[in-house]
Amino acid sequence: MQKRNILKLGMIGGGPGSFIGAIHRNAALMDGMIEIVAGAFSSNPEKSKQTGKELMLDENRIYASYDEMFEKELQLPKSERIDIVSIVTPNHAHFDPTKKALEMGFHVILDKPLTLDYEEAKELYQVIQKAEGMFCLTHTYTGYPMIKQAKQMIADGVIGEVRKVYVEYPQGWLWTLLESEDNKQAQWRTDPNKSGASGCFGDIGTHAFNLAEYVSGQKVAKICADLDIKVEGRQLDDDGAVLMRFENSASGILTASQIETGAENNLKIKIYGDKGGIEWMQEDCNSLIVRWPDKPAEIYRAGSSYLSSLAQENTRTPAGHPEGYIEAFANIYRNFARCIYAKQNGEEPKKEWLDFPGAEDGIRGMAFVDHVLASSRSDQKWTPFVIEK
Amino acid sequence: MQKRNILKLGMIGGGPGSFIGAIHRNAALMDGMIEIVAGAFSSNPEKSKQTGKELMLDENRIYASYDEMFEKELQLPKSERIDIVSIVTPNHAHFDPTKKALEMGFHVILDKPLTLDYEEAKELYQVIQKAEGMFCLTHTYTGYPMIKQAKQMIADGVIGEVRKVYVEYPQGWLWTLLESEDNKQAQWRTDPNKSGASGCFGDIGTHAFNLAEYVSGQKVAKICADLDIKVEGRQLDDDGAVLMRFENSASGILTASQIETGAENNLKIKIYGDKGGIEWMQEDCNSLIVRWPDKPAEIYRAGSSYLSSLAQENTRTPAGHPEGYIEAFANIYRNFARCIYAKQNGEEPKKEWLDFPGAEDGIRGMAFVDHVLASSRSDQKWTPFVIEK
Amino acid sequence: MQKRNILKLGMIGGGPGSFIGAIHRNAALMDGMIEIVAGAFSSNPEKSKQTGKELMLDENRIYASYDEMFEKELQLPKSERIDIVSIVTPNHAHFDPTKKALEMGFHVILDKPLTLDYEEAKELYQVIQKAEGMFCLTHTYTGYPMIKQAKQMIADGVIGEVRKVYVEYPQGWLWTLLESEDNKQAQWRTDPNKSGASGCFGDIGTHAFNLAEYVSGQKVAKICADLDIKVEGRQLDDDGAVLMRFENSASGILTASQIETGAENNLKIKIYGDKGGIEWMQEDCNSLIVRWPDKPAEIYRAGSSYLSSLAQENTRTPAGHPEGYIEAFANIYRNFARCIYAKQNGEEPKKEWLDFPGAEDGIRGMAFVDHVLASSRSDQKWTPFVIEK
Amino acid sequence: MQKRNILKLGMIGGGPGSFIGAIHRNAALMDGMIEIVAGAFSSNPEKSKQTGKELMLDENRIYASYDEMFEKELQLPKSERIDIVSIVTPNHAHFDPTKKALEMGFHVILDKPLTLDYEEAKELYQVIQKAEGMFCLTHTYTGYPMIKQAKQMIADGVIGEVRKVYVEYPQGWLWTLLESEDNKQAQWRTDPNKSGASGCFGDIGTHAFNLAEYVSGQKVAKICADLDIKVEGRQLDDDGAVLMRFENSASGILTASQIETGAENNLKIKIYGDKGGIEWMQEDCNSLIVRWPDKPAEIYRAGSSYLSSLAQENTRTPAGHPEGYIEAFANIYRNFARCIYAKQNGEEPKKEWLDFPGAEDGIRGMAFVDHVLASSRSDQKWTPFVIEK
Repeated sequence: MQKRNILKLGMIGGGPGSFIGAIHRNAALMDGMIEIVAGAFSSNPEKSKQTGKELMLDENRIYASYDEMFEKELQLPKSERIDIVSIVTPNHAHFDPTKKALEMGFHVILDKPLTLDYEEAKELYQVIQKAEGMFCLTHTYTGYPMIKQAKQMIADGVIGEVRKVYVEYPQGWLWTLLESEDNKQAQWRTDPNKSGASGCFGDIGTHAFNLAEYVSGQKVAKICADLDIKVEGRQLDDDGAVLMRFENSASGILTASQIETGAENNLKIKIYGDKGGIEWMQEDCNSLIVRWPDKPAEIYRAGSSYLSSLAQENTRTPAGHPEGYIEAFANIYRNFARCIYAKQNGEEPKKEWLDFPGAEDGIRGMAFVDHVLASSRSDQKWTPFVIEK
Repeated sequence: MQKRNILKLGMIGGGPGSFIGAIHRNAALMDGMIEIVAGAFSSNPEKSKQTGKELMLDENRIYASYDEMFEKELQLPKSERIDIVSIVTPNHAHFDPTKKALEMGFHVILDKPLTLDYEEAKELYQVIQKAEGMFCLTHTYTGYPMIKQAKQMIADGVIGEVRKVYVEYPQGWLWTLLESEDNKQAQWRTDPNKSGASGCFGDIGTHAFNLAEYVSGQKVAKICADLDIKVEGRQLDDDGAVLMRFENSASGILTASQIETGAENNLKIKIYGDKGGIEWMQEDCNSLIVRWPDKPAEIYRAGSSYLSSLAQENTRTPAGHPEGYIEAFANIYRNFARCIYAKQNGEEPKKEWLDFPGAEDGIRGMAFVDHVLASSRSDQKWTPFVIEK
Repeated sequence: MQKRNILKLGMIGGGPGSFIGAIHRNAALMDGMIEIVAGAFSSNPEKSKQTGKELMLDENRIYASYDEMFEKELQLPKSERIDIVSIVTPNHAHFDPTKKALEMGFHVILDKPLTLDYEEAKELYQVIQKAEGMFCLTHTYTGYPMIKQAKQMIADGVIGEVRKVYVEYPQGWLWTLLESEDNKQAQWRTDPNKSGASGCFGDIGTHAFNLAEYVSGQKVAKICADLDIKVEGRQLDDDGAVLMRFENSASGILTASQIETGAENNLKIKIYGDKGGIEWMQEDCNSLIVRWPDKPAEIYRAGSSYLSSLAQENTRTPAGHPEGYIEAFANIYRNFARCIYAKQNGEEPKKEWLDFPGAEDGIRGMAFVDHVLASSRSDQKWTPFVIEK
Repeated sequence: MQKRNILKLGMIGGGPGSFIGAIHRNAALMDGMIEIVAGAFSSNPEKSKQTGKELMLDENRIYASYDEMFEKELQLPKSERIDIVSIVTPNHAHFDPTKKALEMGFHVILDKPLTLDYEEAKELYQVIQKAEGMFCLTHTYTGYPMIKQAKQMIADGVIGEVRKVYVEYPQGWLWTLLESEDNKQAQWRTDPNKSGASGCFGDIGTHAFNLAEYVSGQKVAKICADLDIKVEGRQLDDDGAVLMRFENSASGILTASQIETGAENNLKIKIYGDKGGIEWMQEDCNSLIVRWPDKPAEIYRAGSSYLSSLAQENTRTPAGHPEGYIEAFANIYRNFARCIYAKQNGEEPKKEWLDFPGAEDGIRGMAFVDHVLASSRSDQKWTPFVIEK
C-alpha cells in the first residue's frame, strides 16, 4: 500500500439548524479517511463562525462565504489544502458552488437534488463531464448494503425479467402548515425559490425514483403523475403518485408524501420478476426479503458471508449488529474517498467502490421532477420520459 | 329470547376442486346458527353427488342443478325447507341463480363479484331492491374486526378528514401460465367467458376497491387506470394500478396483481387524515396500527375491551388468540344470520349486525371493473366514476 | 367412501360466562363433521337450559347434570345417541365425567389439564387405557399447522440433534387481583379447589411443557423451578420459570406468567439443533422461521405446497389466508373425528390424523405441575422428572 | 462556549483481524470530538505498524507496545499528547494497560469485561476510584436511545414496581468448533487464558446482566445458573441460563448462548411492572414497545420529540432514519468526551452525559461471571449475589 493522507474536506452549508449537514459530517468522519478542516457553513458569517467553532476548526479556515473558501484554500500548499468540497445547502444553492468547485479542481460531494431546476441540471451535467475532480451526489438510500445486494441479485438475473416495481416514500412531518411556524427545515423545503418548482417530489420523490432505477436496473420510459397540495396555504406539492412504465415494459408505481400523518421515513421498494421478488424497507434496513413462487421466502441479512461483494464492501459489522442511515451515508463517502485515493495513486478502483451516485443520477432526477410536474398538469395519461443532456 | 331454529342452507357450486365453497361452509357452520342441508354443488350431477355425500347430506337433497333444488325445496314444508341459498360459483353463474332464488323468496348470500358484467349488475341490483329475502355479498375483508375498528374510528373523525388512501392487493400465484396446466382455479379466473372482461381486477381489484370505500367512508369520484397482461398467452389482465380521487378530493392509489412472484395474499390498506393515520394488513390481521403526528403509534388489537362495539361484535376470542380469514368470512355469515333471525322475529337488528356487504357494494364493484377497463384503454388521464343503477 | 353420519356431540360445561366452551363449539362445528345435539352446560340447571336454548338444541336434550345426560342418552337408539362427550369444565370437574363417559363407551374430548391433581391423573390414565372409546385432550397449540411442520422437520433431522429449547407463555390479564372482582375466569383459575395446587402452571405452564416436548421430540429429564405469587392476596402461583434438561442432555427454559402486564397470549417456541434452528410464535402463527448457520433464514408459511403432509392435513386455506386459534382447535376436533370415522368403518386412520394429544400428554402434564411445585419448594437445584402411571 | 480542541486518542489492540477495534474507531470518530493519533495495535510490532499505516497515523506514533506508547506520549507536550487511551484487547490484556494508563493520568475507555477475573476486577476497581483520569467501560447496549428511554421511564415509575425481567442474548456463530479453524475471534474467546474462566457468559452474559440492571434499576440479589458446553471439544461454556431474584423480589431470567444455530445477535429485554411493560430488541433497536393492561400498546420511536432528554441526548437523526450499533457505541464515546470537555473546562456536565458505564458496572459484571460459575457447579438452587470491592 502506498502512503496516503487523510483526505481534507471543506463544507458549504450545514450551519445552525441544518439537519443534513450534521449527517454529512458523521458520515464523512466515521471511517477515518476524511477530516473536516474548513467550511463556509452559512451565508451569514456569524453563523458560519459559530458552527466552525463548534466543530473545533482552525479559525482561519472558517469562512464567510464559499467564494472566500475557494480563494483562500487555493492559496494553501496542495498538501494542506482541502481535497473535497461537501455541499449541503438548500437546492437553490447547489449549482453555483458545485460548478465553481469543480472548475477549480476540487472533488465535490453534493447533497441531492442536483440543482434547483432542469435547466441548471443540464448545464451542470456538462461541467461535471469536463471536470478533473470527481463528483458524487448523495442519494443516500443506494448506500444501504441490502439495497446493493438487491441491485446485484437483479442484475445477476436471480429474480428473472423485472415486471413490476413499487417504490414508496412516506413522510408525515408536513401534515400541517409547519412552514408558518419557526421551522427552518419546513420553510426552505416549501419555498419555490429555495426548493424549486416541486416540494415533495424534489425532496423525496427524486430519492424514490433514483432507488427504483438503481435497484431494478431499468430506465423509466413514460409516466403518469397526480400531484397535489393537501395542506391549505402551501405553495408546493406535498403529496403525489406516479404510474410508470419502464423501457422493458415493466410497470411501476411511485408514491411520495409528506402529509401521511404519523409516517416517519419508511422508504420501501418491492420488485417482482418472472422468477422471484425482492422487498426492502428502511425500517428493517438490514434485511432483504427474497420471495419465490414455490419455496419459502428468504431473509437475506446485512453482514452475512453469503452476500455479494457489492453488499459486503458496504458494511462494517457482522450480521445482527444493526447499521443504519448514517452508515448508508458513510458508505457513499467511503466509496468516494476510496476512489479518490485510487486516483491519487494511479490505481484502478474496485468496481464496488465506483458504485456511488453521480451526474447521471442527478440529471435523471431533475428530469424526473420536470416531467412529473408536466404530467401532473396534463390531461393526457402518459408523458414520455426523455432526457436531454 | 324467542324460540328460533338453526337456519337451513342450500349451496350452489362448491363442488370438487372449489376453494371458496369449502371456506363458505366453514364460515357458515362455525357459529352454530346455520346448517347445510341441501346443495347443487356442480353443473355435473355426479360431482354434485360426490360433494353432497362427502358433506353427509341426505341424498334426497343433493341436487343435479339449482333449478331442481329451488323446485324441490319449495315443495317441502316451510319448517324443513332451506332458508338461505349460498352461491359460490364462478362469476358467469352468479346472475341467474341469484335472481331466481331471490324471486322465490330465499335469502341469498353470494360470492363476489356481483355478476359477470355491469349490465347484469344493474339488472340484479333492481331485483335485489324488490326481493323479500335478504341479500349479502361476501366481500370477506370487511368482516375482519380490525377493519371494522378502522372504519368506525374514521367515521368518528378520530384521524380527521381523510386525505390519502392506499390499498394494495398482491398475489403471485399466476406468475406463470398456470391456466395451461390442470388447475381449475387458474382456468376459470383467466377465461373471459367465466370471469368477465377483467381477470385480476374482477377477482381481487374489486375487493381492494370495496375495502377502500368501506374503511375510508369516501366514494371514488374519478380514476386513472393502467392494467396489463404480464404473462404471455394470457387473455385477461393480471396486474394493474389505479390512481383515484375521492369525492372529498382525497387521493388514492389502488394496486392489484396476480404476478407478484412469491406474494401470497397480503392485502393492505393505509389511510391518512389530517389528524392521524391507520394501517392494516392481512398478514397481521388482528392488529391495527394507529399513527399520530406527535405521540407514539398505537397497536390496537382484536379482542381488546377498548375496541368499538362494531369490532367487538365481530370477534369470538380475547386478545392474543388469533382469528383469521375464516372468522372474517364467518362474521359476514353470522351477521347475515342474526339479521334473518331478527326479521323472522320481527325484531330490530343491532346496527352492528347490519354491517355486511350487499347490493350497493356489488353494483359499485362491477362499475369499478367497467370503469377501470375503460380508463385503461383511454388516452385521457381521468375517467369520471359514475354509477347508473 | 362408506356412508357415514355427522358425529353427535354432547357438551359438559360451557355455560354462561365460559370462554373455552364457545371455542370448543366453534372448533367442533367448523368442519361439518360434528353437530352439537345435547349438553349439561352448567351445574346450575337454569344456566344449562339458558345455554342450550341459545344453541337452539332440542329441549329434551338440555340436561341438568352430566349424570342425567349420560343416563338419558344411553336410552336413545344408537343412531340418535351422542357419539362424543366434550368436557370443558374447570379442572376439578374433569376426572369424574371423563371416567364415567369413557366407562359408558363414549368418545371423550377433554379440555386440559387432565385432572385436578396428579393422583387423579394416574387413575384416569388407567381408565383411558382400558376404555373402548377414544380420548383426546385439547392441548390446542399442537393443532397449529406450523407447529406440526416444526415437529416433523425436527423428527426428520432437518435441524440436527436438539441442543436448546425455549418455550415462553406470557399473559398479563391477572396483573391485578381480578379474582376479587366479578370475573368468573379469574375466580376459578385462582381457586385451589377448582384449579388445583398450581394457578399459572396448571393453566398455561402445562401448555408450554406439552408444546416443548411435542415439537422437540425430546422428553424432560430434570427440572429446576422458581414459581412466585406476584399479586398480593392471590393464593396460587401467577408467574414462574423452569430450567430443564432433556433426556438427550439438551437444555431448556420454560417460562409462564399471568402478570406480564399488557401481554396477551403470545406463546413462543424456539428450538436449536446442531444444524439449524426453528422459531414460532402465536402472534404470527402461520409462519415458521427456520434458521441456518450459513445461509439466509427461511419463512415457511402455512398453506404452502412445500410443507409436510402433517402440516398440510391441518390447514384449510392456501398460503396468505390466515388461519388462527380456532382453526388450531378445530384441527384437533377434525383429526379426532376422522379417527372415530375410521374406527367406525374399520379403516386404518392416516398417521397424520392420529397426531392429536391424549392420555400420555395428560399424565405428563400433571406430573409436570406436580414436579414444578416440588422443585419450586426445594433447596436442591435439580428435581428428577419421573412419571409414575 | 470556551475554546476546546479535538480530543486525542491512542488505541491499544485493534490490529489485523480485530472486530471490536474497528467499531471503537468508527464510534470514536463519528462525532468529530475525537481523533486517533497514536496506537499500539498489536503485541506483534509488525502488525501494529500495519494497522497504524492503514489508519494513516504519523509513523512516530505507531508503537510496538503500550508501555512504549505511554512512555513516549508522556514526553510530548500536553497539547500534543493523547488524552484518552482506548483499550480493545482480549480480556487477559485489560488489567495491566488500564491500571498503568490511569496511574499515568490518561482517561481510559475499556472494552468489556473489566478484567480476566474477579480478583483483578477488585484491584482495578480501587485503582479507578483513585485515578485522576476518567474511566468508561463499553457496555454498548446501554448506549441505544430506546434503552435509555426504557431506563428513564422505569425510573420515573411509568410501568410501576418492577416484577419481572427477561433478558436474552442469543448468538449462533459458535455452533460448531470454529476455534479449530483459522478464526481469531473464536480462538481467543474460547481460550481460558485469554477469555477467563467463562466463555459465553464472560463475553455476552455480562452484557445481558448489565443491561438488565441498567434498565430495570434493580440489583440482582441471588441467582441459580445452569451453564453448559454444547460443542464437543470446547473448553468454556457456550450456552446457559440463569434464574434471578432482584433485591425488590422481582424475578428474572437471563439466557445467553453462542450455539443457537442461525441466531445473529438479537439481544432482547422485556420488563413488566405492576402498571405496564416494556419490550426492546436489537433487531428493531429504534423502537420501544410499551404495553398497558387496558389500552393499546405504544411504539416509542428513536428520534421522536416526545422522548425523554436522556434518549434525545443520545440520537443524531429524526425518527425514521435508523441509527444502530455503531451509533450506540458512539453515544458512549460522545458522552465520555463531553464529560472530559466539561472537566477540562471546569464545568458541570449534563446528567445525561454522565450516563455511561464505568467501574461499578465492571465489578458487578465480573462478580456476575464469578457467581454464575459457582452457581452452575453447585447443587444448591440459590447462590446469593454479593459484591466485594
